[in-house]
Amino acid sequence: MRMDAIAARELAAKILHSAGASPDHAAIVADCLVSADLRGVGSHGISRLMIYCERFDSRLVNPQPNFTFPREKNAAILMDADNGPGAVAGVAAMDKAIEKAKVHGMASCAVAHANHFGIAAYYGMRTLEHDMIGLAFTNAPANVAPWGGKKTYFGTNPICFTAPALTKRPIVFDAATSVVARGKILLAEIENQDIPEGWALDPGGNPTTNAKTALAGSMLPFAAYKGYGIAMMIEILCAMLSGSAFGPHTGELYGNKNRQQDISMFFCAIDIASFTDTHDFKTRMDQMIDEVKSAEKAPGVEEIFMPGEIEFCNEDYNLEHGIKVGPGVLRDLTELCKKYKLNLDPHDCLK
Amino acid sequence: MRMDAIAARELAAKILHSAGASPDHAAIVADCLVSADLRGVGSHGISRLMIYCERFDSRLVNPQPNFTFPREKNAAILMDADNGPGAVAGVAAMDKAIEKAKVHGMASCAVAHANHFGIAAYYGMRTLEHDMIGLAFTNAPANVAPWGGKKTYFGTNPICFTAPALTKRPIVFDAATSVVARGKILLAEIENQDIPEGWALDPGGNPTTNAKTALAGSMLPFAAYKGYGIAMMIEILCAMLSGSAFGPHTGELYGNKNRQQDISMFFCAIDIASFTDTHDFKTRMDQMIDEVKSAEKAPGVEEIFMPGEIEFCNEDYNLEHGIKVGPGVLRDLTELCKKYKLNLDPHDCLK
Repeated sequence: MRMDAIAARELAAKILHSAGASPDHAAIVADCLVSADLRGVGSHGISRLMIYCERFDSRLVNPQPNFTFPREKNAAILMDADNGPGAVAGVAAMDKAIEKAKVHGMASCAVAHANHFGIAAYYGMRTLEHDMIGLAFTNAPANVAPWGGKKTYFGTNPICFTAPALTKRPIVFDAATSVVARGKILLAEIENQDIPEGWALDPGGNPTTNAKTALAGSMLPFAAYKGYGIAMMIEILCAMLSGSAFGPHTGELYGNKNRQQDISMFFCAIDIASFTDTHDFKTRMDQMIDEVKSAEKAPGVEEIFMPGEIEFCNEDYNLEHGIKVGPGVLRDLTELCKKYKLNLDPHDCLK
Repeated sequence: MRMDAIAARELAAKILHSAGASPDHAAIVADCLVSADLRGVGSHGISRLMIYCERFDSRLVNPQPNFTFPREKNAAILMDADNGPGAVAGVAAMDKAIEKAKVHGMASCAVAHANHFGIAAYYGMRTLEHDMIGLAFTNAPANVAPWGGKKTYFGTNPICFTAPALTKRPIVFDAATSVVARGKILLAEIENQDIPEGWALDPGGNPTTNAKTALAGSMLPFAAYKGYGIAMMIEILCAMLSGSAFGPHTGELYGNKNRQQDISMFFCAIDIASFTDTHDFKTRMDQMIDEVKSAEKAPGVEEIFMPGEIEFCNEDYNLEHGIKVGPGVLRDLTELCKKYKLNLDPHDCLK
């Protein structure tokens, strides 16, 4: 099934507003979720609406947050998200970093006491129209074992980097520091399929190819100790620098229904014109993209992709044909409309 | 064979001064190289003296550079290294970023037109005594294929991150974005050993376990498309932001004996106190280190290491017992002393 993206966004915003968010905040969260669906990252899309609303309802997420900036020193900003929705906090923080980078050449905003923010690319990409480079990180509930460990400690802590080009699409790199996103193991469990060796450990710390066992155990960092080091870097920049919960001291989105998540983030905006000529930078980006795209391919490879390119293609396709929704998500949406007494039928949004 | 580290540093400095560098600059380059040997990274140690001196002699590296700062806007600095030695440029640039971060909370310095800088950790660690977090990146000659490609395009572009703790040793993460450092394949070739599958491609773009074939082909990025994306991020921050050569347009350290390298770098210093309470930050770092170190280990694992921990242990050991040198390096040093008519015998530095 496919659902019209604009209709889905409007529906999601109405649901989130009914759950307590202001119309502006509801629109941001809805846009963030539908952006993920458009980019083909359904695991971070409107499939999250049910848990977001549950956490609004129980006030484990504050639907009416009052963001404050306890520390602010030119290029360094600390924001307190007041336990508000991650997407709204992320947008406010990245926009603050962009505003400060215009004055100081670059700036970062660390965000304390927030929640699940969806896809990191959503925030990184905000820098592009300002001719800036963006970095967006968040920590996440413990799902990944330290290298050599058998129990989870760090989250799948994503690393996102964005940079504009002149006539080409921008570079939008966004990847979990685990071998794969946890969503892929969840999907394998639903489909009753094995997972490749090297993705995860069982609860005893041994390699496993069983999805269920993997979910009970821990995921592995990418590239062994390198992914472990980068996950720790992200944990330090997000949690340590903002004074939020770190590692296993964060709360789970689904698992902990009686406590806040205390998720943290780190955003950085780098103003290209403060370092070099912007037109020259973007022209050279085009040249690099051309050279990489037209490079000789390894046997069996049809195309070399730039980071983010596949997601841009997904977006084009899904804007026209609709975002993918499964029966479970459709059922969730129907239930949410009923719960909040919205006189709306999500089936009307189907293409 | 082992050589006293302090004696090796003095010897290296004298050689570099004889090759044209000022005493101050020679001391910095020597310290950078011997630091690598101390940390157990011999591939980036005094084994590089011969090629460094060759490039001074041929003036492919400028032994008397005049660093300038063509752009400087609060937290954003562009430095032109005037084709000087990478270590001297790196120290000047990181120190500039630190100085600016004291005023603005954080700052970055992109370095144009420089040369091979050795280990990235050498620069990242300069932030630690200022209670700052450090990032240090450099691009490098093309040795790694883009994901899906069969020819080299990006360098092994290292990523370095440093953060202080209170009573524990700091976190010092420093890793190439290739599966392994090129030095490991060079070593396998010398020892006539096979390399594991997954490290490199042959010139036809097929996986190879033959070290010689791998060196003629290309190295693989770590974690497939993830390492490729991070290598590209580093290339953009270093080369694009500084207006230097990028990808295969850089010069090789050994291969190109008739052209400059035009290597670029990116350094960032983040002042912890501008974001949060420094003592609290460092106390929590200690807690994280304690928790990770004492976490349950996977079967067969004796110890979980923090990023940089093994290198600190190496340093302790090598300071006492001397840095490892092979007969080749000893021969190089002897030859260099002779060439520059230094009345010194490197054998006198042996432990």
